[in-house]
Order: sequence, then C-alpha cells, then structure tokens
Amino acid sequence: MIFNIDDSSDFSLDNLPFGIFSTTDRDKRAGVAIGEKIIDLYALHQVGEVFDFDATILRQEALNDFISLGKSITNKVRSDIQDWFKDKDSVLARNPQVFVNQSDAQMHLPVRIGDYTDFYSSIEHATNVGKMFRDPENALLPNWRHLPVGYHGRSSSIVISGTSINRPYGQTKPVGAAKPIFGPSKRMDFELEMAFIIGKKTSLGDSVSIHQAEDHIFGMVIFNDWSARDIQKWEYIPLGPFLGKSLGSSISPWIVTMEALAPFRVPGPNQDPEVLPYLEYNGNHNYDINLEVDLMPDGGATNTICRSNYKYMYWNMLQQLTHHTVNGCNINIGDMMASGTISGKDTHSYGSMLELTWGGKNPLTLNDGLTRTFIEDGDTITMKAFAEKDGQRVGFGSVSGKILPPKTK
Amino acid sequence: MIFNIDDSSDFSLDNLPFGIFSTTDRDKRAGVAIGEKIIDLYALHQVGEVFDFDATILRQEALNDFISLGKSITNKVRSDIQDWFKDKDSVLARNPQVFVNQSDAQMHLPVRIGDYTDFYSSIEHATNVGKMFRDPENALLPNWRHLPVGYHGRSSSIVISGTSINRPYGQTKPVGAAKPIFGPSKRMDFELEMAFIIGKKTSLGDSVSIHQAEDHIFGMVIFNDWSARDIQKWEYIPLGPFLGKSLGSSISPWIVTMEALAPFRVPGPNQDPEVLPYLEYNGNHNYDINLEVDLMPDGGATNTICRSNYKYMYWNMLQQLTHHTVNGCNINIGDMMASGTISGKDTHSYGSMLELTWGGKNPLTLNDGLTRTFIEDGDTITMKAFAEKDGQRVGFGSVSGKILPPKTK
Repeated sequence: MIFNIDDSSDFSLDNLPFGIFSTTDRDKRAGVAIGEKIIDLYALHQVGEVFDFDATILRQEALNDFISLGKSITNKVRSDIQDWFKDKDSVLARNPQVFVNQSDAQMHLPVRIGDYTDFYSSIEHATNVGKMFRDPENALLPNWRHLPVGYHGRSSSIVISGTSINRPYGQTKPVGAAKPIFGPSKRMDFELEMAFIIGKKTSLGDSVSIHQAEDHIFGMVIFNDWSARDIQKWEYIPLGPFLGKSLGSSISPWIVTMEALAPFRVPGPNQDPEVLPYLEYNGNHNYDINLEVDLMPDGGATNTICRSNYKYMYWNMLQQLTHHTVNGCNINIGDMMASGTISGKDTHSYGSMLELTWGGKNPLTLNDGLTRTFIEDGDTITMKAFAEKDGQRVGFGSVSGKILPPKTK
Repeated sequence: MIFNIDDSSDFSLDNLPFGIFSTTDRDKRAGVAIGEKIIDLYALHQVGEVFDFDATILRQEALNDFISLGKSITNKVRSDIQDWFKDKDSVLARNPQVFVNQSDAQMHLPVRIGDYTDFYSSIEHATNVGKMFRDPENALLPNWRHLPVGYHGRSSSIVISGTSINRPYGQTKPVGAAKPIFGPSKRMDFELEMAFIIGKKTSLGDSVSIHQAEDHIFGMVIFNDWSARDIQKWEYIPLGPFLGKSLGSSISPWIVTMEALAPFRVPGPNQDPEVLPYLEYNGNHNYDINLEVDLMPDGGATNTICRSNYKYMYWNMLQQLTHHTVNGCNINIGDMMASGTISGKDTHSYGSMLELTWGGKNPLTLNDGLTRTFIEDGDTITMKAFAEKDGQRVGFGSVSGKILPPKTK
C-alpha cells in the first residue's frame, strides 16, 4: 500500500469512483477518489503513459468521452490502480504529485447530463404520497405494480453537492382559498434518491432488453430531488410535477461504478402481481446501500432525520431502464435516471419531510429544542450513502445543499 | 434582386430563417433559407470576410454558439443579407458558389437541445382531452386558467423532419381488461405544435420577468409531438406522459426568428379569470400563423386533415417562459419549449387524431375511399406553417415523418 486508507473511508481500494475535479493550479479533469486523496488521472498518464487510449479525454470538463470508451477500459483503469496502489515500485508510488488532497479540490458535475428521468419506484413512498395527496383507501394507483412509473425531469438545474438553492417562488393554492396566490414556497422539501448514469448509448427505435440493461449502466450517485410541495400540489394535475421540481436537484460528485457495487447485491422484494415478460429478470439486482439524511439548521447541530436503504426499491434499475427504452426512446451517455424517493416501512426511514412529518402534521423535534415541518431558510440537508459487508466498504461520500431565502424580486 | 423569389415561397427575403445543412461536398454548417436556395454562411465569410465575429462558429454541427452571439448580431446577418440580395454588385451577387439548392442539401437538427418542455396551452385541446380522458362536465382542471400547465419532455428523441419513426411497443390496458398487455401501440397519433427556441441563457435561481421574456426567445419551428395514446392513457397518472411521448418528436429544420414573425402579431384571447401579476403582459404576443396537417397513406394521395392557427393559443410564449423560470429554473441556449397541441374551436381545426376522430369514434374519410381512426403503418404526416399579410409571406416549410411498422423483437 502506498498509504493507509482508513477502514471507515467510503473511498476504499475496492471502490475507486470517478469524478471531475479542479484545484487552484489544475483545471477541470478526471480523478479517482481514494481515501482522503484524489488520483489525477491526466497527470498520471503524463508521467507514465500508462493508458492505451487518447488521454486528452481525461482533461475534459465531463467524463462522457471517458465513459464512452466502454466498461472494459474504464474497469481496467480501476484494476490497474488497485495493482499499482499495492506495489511500492509502481508508477503511482513513484509519482506522489499525481495525488491531490480532496480538501484542496473543488468538485464539479461529473457528466454532461443530456436527459434526466425520475422514477417513483419505492412502494412505501408511492403509498405514503398517495395517502396524503389522493385517496388513503386507494393510495397506490392501478398502474403502479405493473410498470415503473417515471417522468422526464429537468436536467439544466441538476447541480453539484455544495451548491446552495434559493427558496423558489411559485403559484400555490392554500386549502380553502378561492384563488391561487404567488409567493415563496412554504413547503420546501428534499427527496432522498439514488441515480444511475448511462454508460452506453442507443439509437432511436432500439430497445434495451432486461438482459442487456446492466451493460448500459456505468455507475451511481446520491440524488437530492429538492421539491416545493405546495407548488407541486397545485400544478401537477394532469401532466405531472414541473416547477415544484425544476428549482434544482443536487448530486454527489463521485460516480461509484456498478462493478464496485457488485458485492452488495441482494434480492429485491417479491413483485405481485407478476410483471409482464419484458420486465422479468434473473438474479439479484437490488443493492444493500445504507442511506442517511442529516438536517443542520444555520449555525446549529446536525440531526440525522432519516435512515433508509436502497434495497427497499420495488423496481430495480434493470427494469427501469428496460421499461424506459421499450418504446424505442434512445439513451445517451451521461443521461441520469433517478430512483424516486427511497422510503422504507419504518417511519424513520421515510425519505422526505412530507412523509417524515406526514404533510406537516407531526413536526420533527431536533437538537437544541428546534422543530421542523418542512425545510427552513438556512437549513443544510446532507445525504450520505455507503455499502458495507465483511469488512469491505464502498461509499458515495455525500451530497449537501443549503436552502437560502428567496431572492428579492 | 440576385434572383426572383416566388411569391408563394415560405422563404421570402423578409424571412431568412437559420438552419444546419450539409451536402455531398459541404460538411454540416449554418445556412439561411432563401427561395429554393440556401446561403452557405461559412462559404460567404470565406470569400468576403463579411462577418465581425469568429466565423468558425458557422461551421459547427449546431447553431447554439451562433445564437449565443446575441440578437444584435444574428439580426444583423439577416439585414445584411437583405441588403446584399438587393444589390447586384454585392458580395452575395459576386459569389454564386455560396448558394446551394435546398433540393441538394440534407437538413439536420438546427440546435443541440438541452432541455425540452411541452406546454398544454390551447384551451380547445385541453378541453377536448379532458372530456375524453377524464370528466366531460369538468374537462378543464382547476389550475388550467391560472398557469400555463407544462411538463418536462425527452430531448434525446427529438429528430429532424424526414426521420421515420417505428410504431412503439408498450404497456396498455384495454378497456375492460383485468390486466395490462404488451405490444405495439394501437393508437398512434400526431400532435400539431409549434416550439420556440431559447436564445439567451440564465443562471439557476434567476427568473425571467414577462418584460424580459421576448429577449430570450430566438425563434420558432413546427413541432410534431408523436403520441401513443393507449400507452399514454395507462401510464400518465400521477406523474404525467412518459413513454407515450418519448418515442420521438419531429421538428422542421428552419428556425424562423421572432423578428421575421413580428408583423404577424395579433391580440391573444381574453384571459378570464385575471392572471396573477407575474403573468400580466402588454401588447400583442399571439401570432397569426396558419397551420395545416396532411396525412398521406403509403403510395396514396395527400389528405389535408386539419387546418388550425397558432393565434388560438390561450397562453402566449412570454407567459410560458416567465412561468417556467419563476421558480429559478435555469434555461440554456437551444432549449426547446413547445406549445402543446394547437386546436381551434372548429372540429376541422383539431390538432390530433384523438380529437379529429373523437377518440376513434368518428373515423376520418380520406381520398381513395380510405378511412382512419389513428395513424396506420406507412402513413406520412406532414405539417406546414406560414404567416401571410399584405402580400408578405413568412413560412416554416414543413415537418414530415412516416410511421413504420414496429421493429421485430
């Protein structure tokens, strides 16, 4: 080992996720997280000519072209680094200048996101929202168990962890009011999600079968789908959520590859009724990834307000991607597909304030005697995700964002 | 005049729309349509050094960088061409090699489309769909007259006129069936729309006021939002249309600028109830643009099945854009915002098969004794749009697409 990686680090030698970083003297480029450091892949190639591909793609503002090389190459980069890191005479060991402290780096969006799709694949979340927004007796709509419900989202407003978001303005219709009103949202929320990133494109008219789907998925990030519930509630019928969502979504900076996550596969829930044949899958395609949401008031203490797990998903990624392309819809490298809010059965595992406070009826009690129904100005929401098994840890780091007061109009 | 432009041409000297074309010996580049010709802007600069900006942006695969120069520059290109075209000694007259026949050129998507939004702004269309899909007595939902309802669409599957589309597969639930089934769509439809293209970007958190909105709109195209009605009907509750739409959308190749369309401004319909102050506008912001939809069976004759007009829109573009950004959602150059289906009051002005045949109940009678409820394999749908007033004509050409049989699975 060139240096010791703490057992509690998300960025173990088994992980080696990819991201785009810069420092005061390095422009945007591709890096791999390892412990508390980043390996500057471009600098590594400059000193060692270690890669067989055109290394200028390592000094771009996004990983799209790197990802387009295919899994055989991107995974070889990871396995080479694993080998070099264990070898005290390797090119990596001989060139300490290729390591950058994460604390000295600024992270950027890892990919150019063409299209972004948001699914709605947690049965607990869909049931909770159905109870609150619609009919408690028929919370789950008739199509929900037959197909992974999803919708097209706004990609321009996806931002990197650390970006603050102003409380959005919008139209809302207060209960009992005769007319809608205009003003800042009063029900600002987060949604705890994971998103996967497309690694292999298709052409319009082609479909990805469930057996091919895994080959098209490069890796995953944590995804906070900020939501203005009062705006969403008034606007969403009949065409779905729009401005209640496009105010911003935040992602974690490091793309953890599907290969790094493979040891954490677990069976998914029983799907009843049986799904149509095009959605039938073999093997384990859920992932045991621990999720946590922290709320920190301005200048206050951190409160862990939710612990959930990605393994609760009713529909898995293969089913989501297969369904998405069954109509011939083409996908591009860098497209992002989010899970929808990941809630578990337990009330502490609900992945949004809407569910945690049951529409604001049951305020959360925080440290320092504070309470919350929805997010208040100055609150920072941080989401963390990691998988752990048999002493092996593969994590995502975190995605963090602060809600600022509405801009003056 | 360097040559005569027929009075019936969409591409009059008053128009001069921008597009991206190629020929067997010219790679993709920016052009301006004029009569039956295209002016190769890159070639023009090469012979005359006529433009003050970096002309390499005229030889790119999309107009985004050209548009980013701003309206003062892009409009000067149009007015310079108008001057040169009238002058027999001009750089344009002296260099006939900069003209290309449209019939020799292949057209391409004019812009890289970041995000695509589809509105739902025709009151006649929203009422018709509400009657068929929901409740005839309460066809228009409570929010419809208060805000321009819209949703995020799929940008990857937007294609240029002339691209064929395979009939999509998907899940549908036939009336009375206990379970959904899988197969090719049986209710393939078009939607007659226009779309505007963003010409000036904003940053996340900023809003475009209704007084600034026009400055952010570069121009317009015709937009055919292909729709699989049976897929849409089963999937769309509660998050909106998804695979029933992302199978493909087709656009016309020439972007007609807002300046070319200015003479055709007309008042919009009375909006009742009054809109909230952020959506209040001054002046005329509807446009009198004649619209036509033709259906041509494979090897058969052309049938004009719809005549509508863009002036019927209840919500105008300024209101759509202002609403879209009021929550701080950022927009980028090349983003596309479509109107939603443009239907008039008259049944012949309905902009979709769904409305024209009232959900398939009243088949259309075509030439040659044929009938249609929805689109059949081999049918070509062509949409045309033009404005005309006082002998001045500004048109869009057309957008055309053929529905092919479903791909073999």
